[in-house]
Amino acid sequence: MSLELLSSQKSFGGWHHRYRHHSATLKCDMVFAVYLPPQAEQGASLPVLYWLSGLTCTDENFMQKAGAQRLAAELGLVIVAPDTSPRGPDVPGDPDGAWDFGLGAGFYLNATREPWAQHYRMHDYVVLELPALIEANFPVSDRRGISGHSMGGHGALVCALRNPGRYLSLSAFAPISNPSNCPWGEKAFARYLGEDRDAWREWDTCALLIAADERLPILVDQGEADSFLDVQLKPEVLRATAAAVGHPLTLRLQPGYDHSYYFIASFIDDHLRHHAAALNG
Amino acid sequence: MSLELLSSQKSFGGWHHRYRHHSATLKCDMVFAVYLPPQAEQGASLPVLYWLSGLTCTDENFMQKAGAQRLAAELGLVIVAPDTSPRGPDVPGDPDGAWDFGLGAGFYLNATREPWAQHYRMHDYVVLELPALIEANFPVSDRRGISGHSMGGHGALVCALRNPGRYLSLSAFAPISNPSNCPWGEKAFARYLGEDRDAWREWDTCALLIAADERLPILVDQGEADSFLDVQLKPEVLRATAAAVGHPLTLRLQPGYDHSYYFIASFIDDHLRHHAAALNG
Repeated sequence: MSLELLSSQKSFGGWHHRYRHHSATLKCDMVFAVYLPPQAEQGASLPVLYWLSGLTCTDENFMQKAGAQRLAAELGLVIVAPDTSPRGPDVPGDPDGAWDFGLGAGFYLNATREPWAQHYRMHDYVVLELPALIEANFPVSDRRGISGHSMGGHGALVCALRNPGRYLSLSAFAPISNPSNCPWGEKAFARYLGEDRDAWREWDTCALLIAADERLPILVDQGEADSFLDVQLKPEVLRATAAAVGHPLTLRLQPGYDHSYYFIASFIDDHLRHHAAALNG
Repeated sequence: MSLELLSSQKSFGGWHHRYRHHSATLKCDMVFAVYLPPQAEQGASLPVLYWLSGLTCTDENFMQKAGAQRLAAELGLVIVAPDTSPRGPDVPGDPDGAWDFGLGAGFYLNATREPWAQHYRMHDYVVLELPALIEANFPVSDRRGISGHSMGGHGALVCALRNPGRYLSLSAFAPISNPSNCPWGEKAFARYLGEDRDAWREWDTCALLIAADERLPILVDQGEADSFLDVQLKPEVLRATAAAVGHPLTLRLQPGYDHSYYFIASFIDDHLRHHAAALNG
């Protein structure tokens, strides 16, 4: 697999690179961003935090707006930010041009229904293909953490819960906690997976928590002024489910904060320290 | 003067607000952003840092990408980010639709040539009208600092040098240091001010430094990998001029950094501390 370097920008003594590559999993070209902290130039074998972004985002939102590089440079964390769906002329989007399905809205699952199943396999891309690429091309170890925002928070939780042992740390900002029971999730799952709701359970954090053997601690921040809170995100369902099965969850409701990157930036340092404590341990 | 609140987002315990108002100076509606740190809710009389953005920017670039709120919240600094030009259906832009003149490219001067002189008076807006508005509507003092990037670095330097005593602290990122002698400046000045180069000296940092009585210390960061460095920005002319007249200038050339907000974010904390040392002193 070859990587085409698109751009490089020095950032807090390290480097923000963007690359294009052909994804065999997604059957299209994909762009991702990687932040390499200064320690990468010393040949260190660094842990990697994967960041999954939300609806409509690309690799750029997090890198431009979260302000994560300052502390990542201090902690020696590599951060990898993939795109949020397959892209390109061959990849079908929402039939109505909506922003909450299709392009920019891959929901980090493996679709089973056509025409989506051809390209929409973001779970396998994020969990398997992209880490293999990162671990073959950068001075990193196989110590992985995963986090994300909204649809990407859902993605982070599902990727970790479905793959015990693959991630050593896990967190999320305002995740879609119970997609089987919210409008964004129901629309996406019905198309990507079909109408049989039993199949949805494999991609729903709350359902996965009930079935989980591994008890990887989860840190979640959720703004109380988030306009999507009650209808789409449902942190209280996450809290109740985790409590019922005894899964370690730190869910922090943050008064006044909304769904934006101003919220993420305000708490990203806590998440980076949460990941570094497990990944550098 | 009335302020219309457009949006509010909690950020590091404080608030990022965007407002629209009618500018009598610019004869159009203008949008600006203000970051109020948590101390503002305690009725404190806080100092204000004005941030002037570069070509093509609005009030949003700095607030979204610089990562300044974290330390501003700690230092108790208010930050105000105006737009980069007058806007609206009555405001003429570049006749050829270029991005380096007109809309998004007001160059923080008072134009004297038509059709620009009607609206393009960003200097008076930034130095007089906007601070009056801020000081009448927010819990701030008249202790002001000013900084900016590229065209906005030029703006910050010129605003402070033309108005001795009005600002207590001054810095810039990659400023257009000698606009009378670079393509961006020559194009803009010839249109806004006319072909008489003597009139340009009032808006050129290097010319103003020679004439200055006040010796307000200047902090400048400049990326060495900035693609605009030699042709447009000319930090060495700034260095030589400051040295010649004994103006206190700390010019830091930063190896590997470019002209982007990744560069600004990497060094914004040093600038905030530079301003806070003078403004909180």
